[in-house]
Amino acid sequence: MVGKPQHITIAFDVMGSDHGPAEVVRGAAQLSLESPHIHALLVGDRPVIDEALAGIKHNGERISVHHAGDFVGMDEKPGEALARKPESSVAVAARLVAEGEAHALVSAGNTGAGVLACKRHFQLIPGVRRAALATVYPTRGVRGAKQDPFSLILDVGATVEATAEDLVAFAVMGSAYARIISRNERPKVALLSNGVEPQKGPPRVVEAHQRLSQMPGLNFTGNVEGIDIPRGTVDVIVTDGFVGNVCLKMLEGVHDTVMELAQYAYKESLRWRAGLAMLSSGIERLKDITDWEQYGGAPILGFDRIFIKAHGRSRARAIANAGKVAAKAVANELGTAIQEGLAK
Amino acid sequence: MVGKPQHITIAFDVMGSDHGPAEVVRGAAQLSLESPHIHALLVGDRPVIDEALAGIKHNGERISVHHAGDFVGMDEKPGEALARKPESSVAVAARLVAEGEAHALVSAGNTGAGVLACKRHFQLIPGVRRAALATVYPTRGVRGAKQDPFSLILDVGATVEATAEDLVAFAVMGSAYARIISRNERPKVALLSNGVEPQKGPPRVVEAHQRLSQMPGLNFTGNVEGIDIPRGTVDVIVTDGFVGNVCLKMLEGVHDTVMELAQYAYKESLRWRAGLAMLSSGIERLKDITDWEQYGGAPILGFDRIFIKAHGRSRARAIANAGKVAAKAVANELGTAIQEGLAK
Repeated sequence: MVGKPQHITIAFDVMGSDHGPAEVVRGAAQLSLESPHIHALLVGDRPVIDEALAGIKHNGERISVHHAGDFVGMDEKPGEALARKPESSVAVAARLVAEGEAHALVSAGNTGAGVLACKRHFQLIPGVRRAALATVYPTRGVRGAKQDPFSLILDVGATVEATAEDLVAFAVMGSAYARIISRNERPKVALLSNGVEPQKGPPRVVEAHQRLSQMPGLNFTGNVEGIDIPRGTVDVIVTDGFVGNVCLKMLEGVHDTVMELAQYAYKESLRWRAGLAMLSSGIERLKDITDWEQYGGAPILGFDRIFIKAHGRSRARAIANAGKVAAKAVANELGTAIQEGLAK
Repeated sequence: MVGKPQHITIAFDVMGSDHGPAEVVRGAAQLSLESPHIHALLVGDRPVIDEALAGIKHNGERISVHHAGDFVGMDEKPGEALARKPESSVAVAARLVAEGEAHALVSAGNTGAGVLACKRHFQLIPGVRRAALATVYPTRGVRGAKQDPFSLILDVGATVEATAEDLVAFAVMGSAYARIISRNERPKVALLSNGVEPQKGPPRVVEAHQRLSQMPGLNFTGNVEGIDIPRGTVDVIVTDGFVGNVCLKMLEGVHDTVMELAQYAYKESLRWRAGLAMLSSGIERLKDITDWEQYGGAPILGFDRIFIKAHGRSRARAIANAGKVAAKAVANELGTAIQEGLAK
């Protein structure tokens, strides 16, 4: 485990995101101007990075470059691509983190390749059998010292199936992350099920419920149902990667569908149409806010090193935010917090 | 299996719904005026039913009453309640259907008690190991001869876990129901998974995918993801009862949450507030339309007899609609269609 450093180095996988390497470089440049305690190690095609850096304001003392001659494209199959491209930027960046050249990894590229690179180069925290991909999403409720409107849900796709033991580890990891990143002292943690009663759900969920109830270090509030996901009833929702992935993708569809439904239902109403027109700019902004991955990215939890997966569509601001979240997780020793939580 | 009858008798469980027996009686009374081919057999407290009937317009030749001295309340535990109350209206109504006194059952009471009463009194169709609760919900797309905006999803909670074999049976049952009720000749059927590729998902989903691909009688289009649920990409979405229940409850939360999010995000914008105010009556109507259980209720599929579970909050119109849907399923021999689909 990396100790608590004074200065934190974040390795940025510069290649393979939707808006190209220059956008990631712009994010790192912003970070170099805003965050004196963070050093950005840019991993990718050196000429491309140098050219991007040359054109923008940045603090050269807080940025360095490590060349990687290849990269994994957004639509490539992760396993095949990593096997064929050992010098791809995400693999090199993960290796640099594993070797102690950087404290954490940020990538806006292919999610599967990022997770796989971590699996190959990082170690699972003792007590964790599988890493989980977590994501924050906006809710009505606010929580913690930051009055954060976001809840965390995990796993949303690093695994497919999960045992009771995995679900317990996910709960501990999610709780530690919410505590450290959202400054929420006692995050409410719940299991997603088909009813609030402890005996509801498949055997793995029922067993995880029993185990979590006996963990005094955790603020486990029991089961929640699907309706509680958008409501934001709790701070951390725990489920397996299959269900989490389905829920996450349903959330992504919420905005479009409600507007489409509204138009379908009220196409004859002038009053309704006028209201919709007045809302149209607001609706665009609502779309932005429901695109929660803009807000610091999705952490992969369970490894001894930290990986923040920024959305493929991330702009410079989101990349800089992901770097700050990664640094915060490092500074507050997220890995140690998870390990201690599991030991209790 | 009940043959194709000229006149169809629907047993209505009159007791235990949110708006009381008189509302269910009003629904049956409407039906008696509108549908000459349907006979309503009202099962419940005879004095209460008689009093309700006395005050409203109805066709007495198309309504009869069967007394049941007890009923299961909405918050009672289904198993315990049915054991304690063998003469509860839902149990008596299911028994009457099993004995051939009526062709199908409609209830707006306790869902679990309804499913359990069917399990006790009806037979599973050969080839079906578990019955499934299906529900329609509104989407943007329209489908079938009726230009129906609704998709069907099953199972949404009759089971918790499902094998590949169960998922295949659910697909056949959902397809038959959509064909008969929505008059959609070749309903598109898909499996819910965490990716569209055939190998995505837990083993049961992967295996079900393989099997469904080999069924020529079925219009199986492969896997869909969570985002496709609100989009209405396909006509029938197949999943296990745990995942289906979570998704259904997330859909229920869509309306409230989007409006809450909007208010959270734009509370400072006067323009946005004005737009919201203009939409407020429309939003109430949107809420109605997203309360899709108003539209004919949720069928329990897989038994030799038909059970339509109307929403607990059903008004008379929804009860009458549930009766019409049940009669349509009987007239078109839904059970036979399912059995034939499974044999292919």
